Amino acid sequence: MTESTTVDLFVEETHSSGFSMKYKIKTVLYSEQSKFQHVSVVDTVGHGKMLLNDGLVMVTERDEFVYHDMIAHVPLFTHPNPKNVLIIGGGDGGTAREVLRHKSVETCTMVEIDEKVVEASRLHIPQTSCELDNPRLNLLIEDGVHFLKNTNEKFDVILVDSTEPFGPATPLFNIDFYRDVFNSLTENGIVVSQGESCFYESESQNSLLKILHETFPVVSVYNYSNLTYPGGLWSFTFASKGLSPVKDFDEDRILKSDLKFQYYNKDIHRSAFCLPQFMQNSVKEYLKG
Amino acid sequence: MTESTTVDLFVEETHSSGFSMKYKIKTVLYSEQSKFQHVSVVDTVGHGKMLLNDGLVMVTERDEFVYHDMIAHVPLFTHPNPKNVLIIGGGDGGTAREVLRHKSVETCTMVEIDEKVVEASRLHIPQTSCELDNPRLNLLIEDGVHFLKNTNEKFDVILVDSTEPFGPATPLFNIDFYRDVFNSLTENGIVVSQGESCFYESESQNSLLKILHETFPVVSVYNYSNLTYPGGLWSFTFASKGLSPVKDFDEDRILKSDLKFQYYNKDIHRSAFCLPQFMQNSVKEYLKG
Repeated sequence: MTESTTVDLFVEETHSSGFSMKYKIKTVLYSEQSKFQHVSVVDTVGHGKMLLNDGLVMVTERDEFVYHDMIAHVPLFTHPNPKNVLIIGGGDGGTAREVLRHKSVETCTMVEIDEKVVEASRLHIPQTSCELDNPRLNLLIEDGVHFLKNTNEKFDVILVDSTEPFGPATPLFNIDFYRDVFNSLTENGIVVSQGESCFYESESQNSLLKILHETFPVVSVYNYSNLTYPGGLWSFTFASKGLSPVKDFDEDRILKSDLKFQYYNKDIHRSAFCLPQFMQNSVKEYLKG
Repeated sequence: MTESTTVDLFVEETHSSGFSMKYKIKTVLYSEQSKFQHVSVVDTVGHGKMLLNDGLVMVTERDEFVYHDMIAHVPLFTHPNPKNVLIIGGGDGGTAREVLRHKSVETCTMVEIDEKVVEASRLHIPQTSCELDNPRLNLLIEDGVHFLKNTNEKFDVILVDSTEPFGPATPLFNIDFYRDVFNSLTENGIVVSQGESCFYESESQNSLLKILHETFPVVSVYNYSNLTYPGGLWSFTFASKGLSPVKDFDEDRILKSDLKFQYYNKDIHRSAFCLPQFMQNSVKEYLKG
């Protein structure tokens, strides 16, 4: 008599601080080496489907709403009338999905370097990829750095929805890139970027803020709590040609928009800019405006 | 010729959602079975010394400041003149350390059920246990539930610095306990309790808030970001006989106190009560006052 046996499958994200996060999974749905990185989608026991680039968790169905609410709605409710939005990266589609909920947005251009990320998300994570065929979306598979260097278009809001500052995203943590971002923004333009964590990645966070400080008249940083990023407390940087994310935020626009959110609301918009003291101490020299 | 070899040691905290957090460690410093739980202290590679009860991370030297700032200073800067403070639990000493920094506090009574937690912290984590011999501290090794049922003392602030609602802390998540808390508070009294996480533990969070809603005229909940608790976003509940943690908060008292903090500040005090939308939806029926 034999019993059927099963094996326990896990994915594990290991961090330089001798720390790792481990997820029990049911099955591997996608696993391909692209030109840039290893792209995989797994179905987890507790977090729904999960996208990983080079073994780092990018998105899970359970908590992707946090990241995508916070990268999109903070700048789009700060800018009084965002019409043209550019997303650099964001291949899973979640950021585009949230941007396109804003009726003022006429076109959203999304420049993702890695077609495998888009393919994996289209095939297995409709929750984030569901708006990739929206007629207002212009999806380009292209290097975002190259695109910005060569475009004549101007954008009201640019969202840098990137991975961490190694691998294919390395050139996105560079002052030349942010000079091109500045030049591609309209007069009231705003750029929001994936801004790392002050707990575990404060050097990367500070080097990005330093670049913004040298390039933009207004620089700020705001926090959100992600379930599946190490340490939980992660940040977006905010830089603009003049608009302040708190002083120029008009909460009535949320009410008038009729949009409902899972993470974002008017109180979260303001409170996200209130920084714990250790983080204030770490970043204060880079903030301005 | 032989080479010396080493083994990699880890502690791993496994969560019901098929998720675990794993820490590389250098050595085990303390490992004893008490009457209530297994108590251990390990020296980690990336987080300093770490205290675990029954394998759950309680405190690490790297981020204990977050929890201890937020359990102590939010109520102690809301109450206009806290003189007598009671801590239930808190055996590592970090909460007492922060309470005793307030000059208004004449006596701090700390009732910890498990002497092994105190012993382990005294022996190996002076960073948290450093004020356990402070003359203003009255440390009792006793069941906090029993203590509150039998005491005639009144406290301005009670801090329930407990582990999760299983094991020795189970009776602390009970309405009878909170009736005794109410009766042991002065007229302006406040109770703040370890309030679980809305990401992973929303049932426990809601059952605690329900108890408070049935017992106190003012009930609220506030968030903090802990590096080493699952999901990062964790909460404290706030209940009082009348004081509001935002409306009655006088930020000038922080300035006058001359105290400096690593996590807490006036903006964090207010913004901690701004809840993400999914959490507002989850807890709103229990909040009042």
